[in-house]
Amino acid sequence: MDERSAQQVAQTADTPPTRRQFLTMVGALGGAAVMYQVMGMMGMAHASPYAGKIDLGSAPPNTKVLVLGAGIAGMVAAMELRDAGYEVEVIEFRDVAGGRCWTLRAGDTYEELGGFVQTVDFAEGNYFNPGPWRVPYNHYGILDYCRRLGVEMEALIQINNNSYLHSATKFDGKPIRYREINSDFRGHISDLLSKVTNQGLLDEVLSDADKTNLLAGLRTFGGLDADNAYLQSNNASARRGYERAPGGGVDGAPIANDPIELSTLLDSGLWRSLATSEALNGSMPIFQPKGGMDMIARAMAANLGDLVKYNKRVIRINQDDSQVTVTYQDMDNGGAEVTTTAPYCVCTIPFSILSKIEHDFSDPLWEVIDSMYYASSIKVGIEFKRRFWEEDEHIYGGTTYTDLPIAQISYPSNDYLSNKPGVLLAAYAWGATAYQFSSMAPEERIQRTLDFGAQIHPQMHDEFKAGVAVAWHRVPWTHGCYGQWRDKEAQYQDAVAMDRRVVMAGEHLSYLPAWMEGAVLSSLDAITRLHAVATANAGEQ
Amino acid sequence: MDERSAQQVAQTADTPPTRRQFLTMVGALGGAAVMYQVMGMMGMAHASPYAGKIDLGSAPPNTKVLVLGAGIAGMVAAMELRDAGYEVEVIEFRDVAGGRCWTLRAGDTYEELGGFVQTVDFAEGNYFNPGPWRVPYNHYGILDYCRRLGVEMEALIQINNNSYLHSATKFDGKPIRYREINSDFRGHISDLLSKVTNQGLLDEVLSDADKTNLLAGLRTFGGLDADNAYLQSNNASARRGYERAPGGGVDGAPIANDPIELSTLLDSGLWRSLATSEALNGSMPIFQPKGGMDMIARAMAANLGDLVKYNKRVIRINQDDSQVTVTYQDMDNGGAEVTTTAPYCVCTIPFSILSKIEHDFSDPLWEVIDSMYYASSIKVGIEFKRRFWEEDEHIYGGTTYTDLPIAQISYPSNDYLSNKPGVLLAAYAWGATAYQFSSMAPEERIQRTLDFGAQIHPQMHDEFKAGVAVAWHRVPWTHGCYGQWRDKEAQYQDAVAMDRRVVMAGEHLSYLPAWMEGAVLSSLDAITRLHAVATANAGEQ
Ligand SMILES: Cc1cc2nc3c(=O)[nH]c(=O)nc-3n(C[C@H](O)[C@H](O)[C@H](O)COP(=O)(O)OP(=O)(O)OC[C@H]3O[C@@H](n4cnc5c(N)ncnc54)[C@H](O)[C@@H]3O)c2cc1C
Ligand SMILES: Cc1cc2nc3c(=O)[nH]c(=O)nc-3n(C[C@H](O)[C@H](O)[C@H](O)COP(=O)(O)OP(=O)(O)OC[C@H]3O[C@@H](n4cnc5c(N)ncnc54)[C@H](O)[C@@H]3O)c2cc1C
Repeated sequence: MDERSAQQVAQTADTPPTRRQFLTMVGALGGAAVMYQVMGMMGMAHASPYAGKIDLGSAPPNTKVLVLGAGIAGMVAAMELRDAGYEVEVIEFRDVAGGRCWTLRAGDTYEELGGFVQTVDFAEGNYFNPGPWRVPYNHYGILDYCRRLGVEMEALIQINNNSYLHSATKFDGKPIRYREINSDFRGHISDLLSKVTNQGLLDEVLSDADKTNLLAGLRTFGGLDADNAYLQSNNASARRGYERAPGGGVDGAPIANDPIELSTLLDSGLWRSLATSEALNGSMPIFQPKGGMDMIARAMAANLGDLVKYNKRVIRINQDDSQVTVTYQDMDNGGAEVTTTAPYCVCTIPFSILSKIEHDFSDPLWEVIDSMYYASSIKVGIEFKRRFWEEDEHIYGGTTYTDLPIAQISYPSNDYLSNKPGVLLAAYAWGATAYQFSSMAPEERIQRTLDFGAQIHPQMHDEFKAGVAVAWHRVPWTHGCYGQWRDKEAQYQDAVAMDRRVVMAGEHLSYLPAWMEGAVLSSLDAITRLHAVATANAGEQ
Repeated sequence: MDERSAQQVAQTADTPPTRRQFLTMVGALGGAAVMYQVMGMMGMAHASPYAGKIDLGSAPPNTKVLVLGAGIAGMVAAMELRDAGYEVEVIEFRDVAGGRCWTLRAGDTYEELGGFVQTVDFAEGNYFNPGPWRVPYNHYGILDYCRRLGVEMEALIQINNNSYLHSATKFDGKPIRYREINSDFRGHISDLLSKVTNQGLLDEVLSDADKTNLLAGLRTFGGLDADNAYLQSNNASARRGYERAPGGGVDGAPIANDPIELSTLLDSGLWRSLATSEALNGSMPIFQPKGGMDMIARAMAANLGDLVKYNKRVIRINQDDSQVTVTYQDMDNGGAEVTTTAPYCVCTIPFSILSKIEHDFSDPLWEVIDSMYYASSIKVGIEFKRRFWEEDEHIYGGTTYTDLPIAQISYPSNDYLSNKPGVLLAAYAWGATAYQFSSMAPEERIQRTLDFGAQIHPQMHDEFKAGVAVAWHRVPWTHGCYGQWRDKEAQYQDAVAMDRRVVMAGEHLSYLPAWMEGAVLSSLDAITRLHAVATANAGEQ
């Protein structure tokens, strides 16, 4: 800021500043970066509450914090507390970090509850994410960790106009391209609304100017013709597809085809999937780490180094007025019981597991731990000999939605056009289907997935190479997919409140459940409050 | 296919086969690949007329074809004719192949018509595509060449819910996030149509079942509440953004914010950009080659090797009953005139240039060459010291649309979250603006771009590092952006028809003008017809 604008700011300081003056002031005081941040916060609809790297200030001297669990929540807490000067010890059940942030690769072996063992027989470089697979742009927190830790991200194709919408009972069970349903729904509703507008039926709520603008808007939004109608035309076909698509040379001119009739379209129910990428958490752009989701966990674990103790299973948590005592079985040492203590503790163990661990938390917290149930989910990853969805059907990334039990088929957003085998998320189901699949042996889950999938992609049986099926209720370190509340409104504050010297964190303690971002934001909030208590206690001493 | 289904096919051969029977037959006869191809062609709306790698059969012995121009059309013709056994000679004006498929990188120098020279001062690895920058999924032809030639592709983010829509005269000139306009437009029109449906105003055109389905469809499509209204609610905010977005811990619960009022929204005109990714050519998924668009040209050129003769400027094309004679200036040899002959020729030189070359084409063709005018376009690529659009504004890829002369700002779809300088497509304009910018010196074009851009991104001046501005009317080897017709319907067949021994090919001779796919499809059609003529002529001899 130059002299003159600094003066202007000073001169106007006794009257409320205009938006521009206010920004200039902010710029003068905090520099450009702060100004742009404030700018983003004025009168706009926010996509995230994340406010940049947390600044806790500094820890009271020689203060230790125990962090239970090295998932995303635990590792975020550990990194930030360490950066503020706390001594940190992270205790983790598995031999790797990440928790649900997990990737299976060629050669990996996975044993689920009940004893079924699966070995992943994929081609080198191929992988499957049994848990998280998408990082939406509005998850500013987790993306900031990716940036700071150098995790390379690539775009995940969320909307694919050439993937399918499918119902076993509509259109003779034939999958329909997304673009046809999407264009025709947009077109027909824009056409209907144009008609009633032109008939004067909205005159009470719309001014003449509104009407003119609305009709123009519907024309472009719906792909309508000059008369605001959605009919067979090159206009409509430019969106939904043609009888003969535009080409080159002698037969280059396009031939339009017929939209699906409104009544047939409505009856099909295929419009149910049209808003899958409208909500912030599922909207473009959306990312995946290159090489598998656990690249995030690996980067965090590398950053923490030997602060994380692996193969330690927490079995008891006690606290008194001065410290927290955690007992774990050391699986590296024949399961010997070990205790460790610290004045404070962040516990990120999922409540599904915590409910089976001895502890002396307060009654209100205990009630939440005990009553939270974990959603069921099944994900089946299948590797095929060739990328038939690309080669035969021109589907690159994105998702096909179906009312078959497999619910969806998602296509890989990497290695496009390659000649190597490719891995599909061939089933991703919840609720009843997930329970059914959980009760089967893994090979049977894969077989059923192929049988259903072949109704959409008949190539599936011929091209099958290898598969892996993860039923989340059988995952030993979470016993489920994500935490669901008996009564969130009534119970939430009891669960997030610091319980003497222990604070809970994790996706389950957020309004972004089943997202890594929920784990990040919950963790940052938890350690902020822990730090305030620790600082206050230190002051009193 | 097993015995039994083969029998079924045989038994039903005298009655018209059902869809399934027909497919089984096709499968039995042509194998899986053919079956899947036929499957894709039954009763569906097509996205592309491309039918897979062309099979010309074999060339008449010792038959040579001259190919003029080593752009996409010329190189496709050369590769396929060579594969069919023709002797091929490609004559190219520049010292590299690709034509409009062109990338500028650190250290490159570019001299435009009029003499302005620009040197690209970007960071290592950064690039700018002055011409083509996107390959939509429905361009099956060019994508198939990428696959066959091993050109690695990555997703380009076409829709970005967090980019801006901007008008200099609306909302105080403040950019609005795409998601707000998009959600509110969808919401309001769904709300309006729900109301008239519930009032019975559509009873004549909708059955009861239709109405129930329509209301359910509008609820999900528009983000409406249980009463089919679009109001301040977490439902609406889940799409448009919140007053306070959902988070973790104590303050995790979201607070909804207010949609933009319908009348304000309609008046803003910002809905004009809502369908930018609905048409096939602009819809998801859409790709870019990793490292720059000319990776496609480089792969084709490498495949052709020394069949391409560089630095040769065609100045004359003549033909008689037996051969075509092409005269060029050899710039590697002081501009000496050289002639070369062949029985056939594919000419891909843009008509803007061809109109200034001596030739003896037929009158109808000459008329088209002479009357085609080339659209004007300007593209400005600016490198900034840091990726402020990501760091300050959380915009990753995608495009901001504005009614300022710069028309759009597109963000890079690669190196997300990186700390390196990044390159924006900071202006991409057509028509009047393009002419105005063309008449300025490059530094001035860049300066103006920054001035306009700063209305949307105030960081632009501070963060400026280097820029390059390509005005297509000044590009020496095309004199414009793409071919436009005086009267396409009347002239088209005259232009694509083989003119004795010469056939024209290129984007201008297609119904996908200004797309590489148009060049591919035009070229494939042209050589198919040339091959038919050559084969017929050979048979007569
Ligand atoms: C099927 C599925 C799909 C998902 N999709 C996405 C997605 O696309 N994007 C996204 O962002 N999120 C997604 N999620 C959610 C995401 O995985 C979670 O929100 C997040 O990883 C939870 O992190 P956390 O740290 O809270 O818990 P966890 O990751 O569960 O971490 C808890 C840790 O505690 C450890 N632990 C357990 N018991 C003990 C014990 N007794 N002693 C010591 N340690 C113990 C565990 O081993 C684990 O490391 C998905 C989840 C699932 C299951
Ligand atoms: C600004 C802009 C944006 C675009 N965006 C896209 C996009 O996003 N995606 C997409 O697919 N397409 C896009 N296109 C279109 C695409 O670039 C063209 O359709 C395609 O590259 C044309 O190929 P062509 O072979 O027909 O012509 P050209 O590429 O023009 O090839 C003609 C060749 O002839 C050579 N030549 C010229 N004169 C002579 C002579 N006298 N002697 C010898 N050789 C000569 C030229 O040097 C050139 O190599 C864009 C184009 C522009 C300009």
